[in-house]
Amino acid sequence: MQKYFISLEELHSGVLAGEVAYQIKNVLRGKVKDQFLLGVEPQTFLAEIIEVMNKEIKFRVVKEVTGNFELPVFVSLFQGYPKGDKLESIIKYGTQLGISEIHPILMNRSIVKIDQNRKDSKLERFNKIAKEAAEQSFRNIVPSVQGIQKLKDVDFSGYSIKILCYEETAKNGETSAFKKAITAAKSTDRIAVVVGPEGGIAPEEVEYLKSLGFICVGLGPRILRTETVIYYILSAMSYEWELSK
Amino acid sequence: MQKYFISLEELHSGVLAGEVAYQIKNVLRGKVKDQFLLGVEPQTFLAEIIEVMNKEIKFRVVKEVTGNFELPVFVSLFQGYPKGDKLESIIKYGTQLGISEIHPILMNRSIVKIDQNRKDSKLERFNKIAKEAAEQSFRNIVPSVQGIQKLKDVDFSGYSIKILCYEETAKNGETSAFKKAITAAKSTDRIAVVVGPEGGIAPEEVEYLKSLGFICVGLGPRILRTETVIYYILSAMSYEWELSK
Repeated sequence: MQKYFISLEELHSGVLAGEVAYQIKNVLRGKVKDQFLLGVEPQTFLAEIIEVMNKEIKFRVVKEVTGNFELPVFVSLFQGYPKGDKLESIIKYGTQLGISEIHPILMNRSIVKIDQNRKDSKLERFNKIAKEAAEQSFRNIVPSVQGIQKLKDVDFSGYSIKILCYEETAKNGETSAFKKAITAAKSTDRIAVVVGPEGGIAPEEVEYLKSLGFICVGLGPRILRTETVIYYILSAMSYEWELSK
Repeated sequence: MQKYFISLEELHSGVLAGEVAYQIKNVLRGKVKDQFLLGVEPQTFLAEIIEVMNKEIKFRVVKEVTGNFELPVFVSLFQGYPKGDKLESIIKYGTQLGISEIHPILMNRSIVKIDQNRKDSKLERFNKIAKEAAEQSFRNIVPSVQGIQKLKDVDFSGYSIKILCYEETAKNGETSAFKKAITAAKSTDRIAVVVGPEGGIAPEEVEYLKSLGFICVGLGPRILRTETVIYYILSAMSYEWELSK
């Protein structure tokens, strides 16, 4: 069943307009009595079409749908800004796999040039990708994509577990820091994960992050590309926290 | 350091030609004494340039490099043929994350039409993607991408653990079958993983696979898209088998 995130005002109005109405009318070809889900973060409601109008859809709420689709711990990704459209893939798949928040970070080896004039429209696009992925994976919340920052400007003080994915750590055969950290995590923890861009993390950045309390973790023997690291991390977290024997 | 897979004959000849020579000469801008890795499955050798010729590179082997970059258990993916270029992403990221073999499968809800004339060139392209991803992630072997088959024609008899990722299982809250199966796996096991195409697996296919000994597993509460499932599975396997507390 299709899910759409809307505002509380829209829910109360009983009328959908704009893109959601367009989707229901023209993509789903919705008819009276057809049902769909409406997300008002973090709640979800089953809704039913009452009337299909020219550019609007009148609906009624059938009932609230319970169910938690969120990882039990808050996980924020600080992603070294990568080339091309990799950040879009990271947002899309990271959202499916349960990420809480995404911070694109300019790091020493990020080679991307940010066009100041297109910064806002880019951020809007990123948040739209997160919203669509959250709808498709039935998330309770839409992970927010924050504005681009330089590493030195990031405030990591709100995080209780700080994980740095560093290629050299993996190459040196480190295999226990990640598992130790996430098996010990509690639902009140907030986890920050830093992943470098394609060229990796510069040694001075590693030292800086270590001084802030980050632990360097290895994620097995194979060298992962920048965009694959967060998929590994989130999948492992789900496996550890959400599955049982 | 860059790795290239070559044949045993090429290793013994001491001369690289064709695409590898082109890469070393024109992309890496290799000079005499520059070093690189040569993979002759499953071995890896450190090599050094002796002479850069017009279309060939003369090299000598410095030493064998030991190190195992493979998952400890053989894992074969049987992927319901998806739309667009998703299979290429699955091959690329699946290889990075340690897959052993990939079988594209035509399932009831695969909506792709396979052009018989382009079948061979497509398969060649898939195997090239696997080779490049294996080189980048320092794999010891190149996962082979097998020819496209119909589900009914697949011989699953060689597999000792058979995992079926079925959306309805996840929706019903099943959370223990996957972890049970992979924590019990031994290095002599061979694991088959079946993932449906975008439209999912048809009920009659589920019944058929169950009759062959497949177990239905849920992978947490979020609905994963077809291309994300194998990333989750391989990451969780690495986390379980390759990381320790």
